[in-house]
Amino acid sequence: MNKKFHFAVFLPQYENLEYWKSQIIGIEKAAIEFSKFGIVLDYFFYDFNVVSFKEAVKKVLEFDCDGLLFAPIFYQESVRFLAEYEKKDIPVVMIDSNISNNDEHAYVGQDAFQSGYLAGRLISFAVKNERQILIFKITREIESTSVYLQRIDGFYSFFKDHEELTNFKFSEITIKDSGIDQLNLEMFAGINSVFVPNSRAYIVARFLEQNNIKGVRIIGYDLLKENIEYLNKGVIDFLINQRPEEQGYMGINHLYKKLVLQETVVNTHYIPLEIILKENYFPARKG
Amino acid sequence: MNKKFHFAVFLPQYENLEYWKSQIIGIEKAAIEFSKFGIVLDYFFYDFNVVSFKEAVKKVLEFDCDGLLFAPIFYQESVRFLAEYEKKDIPVVMIDSNISNNDEHAYVGQDAFQSGYLAGRLISFAVKNERQILIFKITREIESTSVYLQRIDGFYSFFKDHEELTNFKFSEITIKDSGIDQLNLEMFAGINSVFVPNSRAYIVARFLEQNNIKGVRIIGYDLLKENIEYLNKGVIDFLINQRPEEQGYMGINHLYKKLVLQETVVNTHYIPLEIILKENYFPARKG
Repeated sequence: MNKKFHFAVFLPQYENLEYWKSQIIGIEKAAIEFSKFGIVLDYFFYDFNVVSFKEAVKKVLEFDCDGLLFAPIFYQESVRFLAEYEKKDIPVVMIDSNISNNDEHAYVGQDAFQSGYLAGRLISFAVKNERQILIFKITREIESTSVYLQRIDGFYSFFKDHEELTNFKFSEITIKDSGIDQLNLEMFAGINSVFVPNSRAYIVARFLEQNNIKGVRIIGYDLLKENIEYLNKGVIDFLINQRPEEQGYMGINHLYKKLVLQETVVNTHYIPLEIILKENYFPARKG
Repeated sequence: MNKKFHFAVFLPQYENLEYWKSQIIGIEKAAIEFSKFGIVLDYFFYDFNVVSFKEAVKKVLEFDCDGLLFAPIFYQESVRFLAEYEKKDIPVVMIDSNISNNDEHAYVGQDAFQSGYLAGRLISFAVKNERQILIFKITREIESTSVYLQRIDGFYSFFKDHEELTNFKFSEITIKDSGIDQLNLEMFAGINSVFVPNSRAYIVARFLEQNNIKGVRIIGYDLLKENIEYLNKGVIDFLINQRPEEQGYMGINHLYKKLVLQETVVNTHYIPLEIILKENYFPARKG
């Protein structure tokens, strides 16, 4: 006769996407742990395009539940969805990206601006010589999100805040989709460091390796298998880990505490900005 | 009618020592969590000297219990103690320092060699110019332990493994006790980077600040209040965090799983080498 708590989980499709798969692993870990308290998860997945997202929005709006876990990948559409969803007066926790300007919704994820700021600091270490820094944007539709832009914003802000670092010059390149065939040697002429503000640092690393270009520092995000491969080869220098599994777990944990235990829960749970180098990456880190 | 499990906790005195206080916080957190399964902790504290340690050893050897949590601070004395303790055939888990050559005892803590190796890598970033690196050893009796030496060993090993880094020169200074009055300007003449292989980086940082010496990169260990102060001021560049609270928790958790649940437990639990910069330090990181 236990009461059931239905949580809607509204996320991108995770097949072949390690990052989102890890989020789901964390979510399911929490679901198993709290299942004896009547928690039931209902999944709403969308493909990485706005059409699919909008179709899923309709279903989520019609679905009757107690709480919502939501990854607001498409900025404009997500803002509109949340405005509509607020009428339902159901607690919402966002993971991965925070698009809320107020404190109305909970958030579990990194401070994207600060993570870009940290990346700026990591790139700034070799301060004696002039440095040419390339911000390499490899985008799908999805990457025109606030996280992506906030990271770049944070990156530049680090150098604005440190006026003594006069010897850094910046340029940007944007290519569409994930194709390594769109890269060319000219892009890297004179470049000392590359900042890739999403999980695709391995694309740059692979190109540099194939063309035997050495001594370029690369910083990127997420412990994808392909990124780790180039980290271990010494081609990628730094990866900032977002701990997706922990995000998923904490997202469900937040709804559980708020709705089942009726505890007062802090609304923003920042995931630490974890710096991974070849020398502190351990495959079995989860222990 | 529940069976009681007595765990002996054999650690340095923690008053005024943040690192050991955090270990205790983790230990007590685990104790509360598992108290319903009959776990009882009995503490044996020793002061930071061999005489006090040996007195405590006698009491621990006489004490009848089911498991032992032990921080083997004094190397030779700890080896002798463990050889004696093995006759009792009681599971031992070590935290902080691993002095066991075999897999007989469990260990929760960092890989000290690897943490020094990582420090070497972090120091190596500014590779264009010649660098004079100072390894600054501020010791009490306690620091003639294996952790300390393993870190220095790992630090040098990084540079041995990277023969292309020919522009690094090394020197070492050892001072006794924690007194800033033993430092002098001559020690830092021509120095670009300082590696402090224990928690006392703040002593070097304070001296450099007081004497208005800038541009020296400092790397050290542990998120002590005083270290954090100089991290936030930009005097200390990197701190490697050993997550003492997690060590204490995992140590008790190990004994609980092994003795109460009778699970097969992995014997070595490495704590991640967490790199903390001003830009990714958050006071409320525990979340």
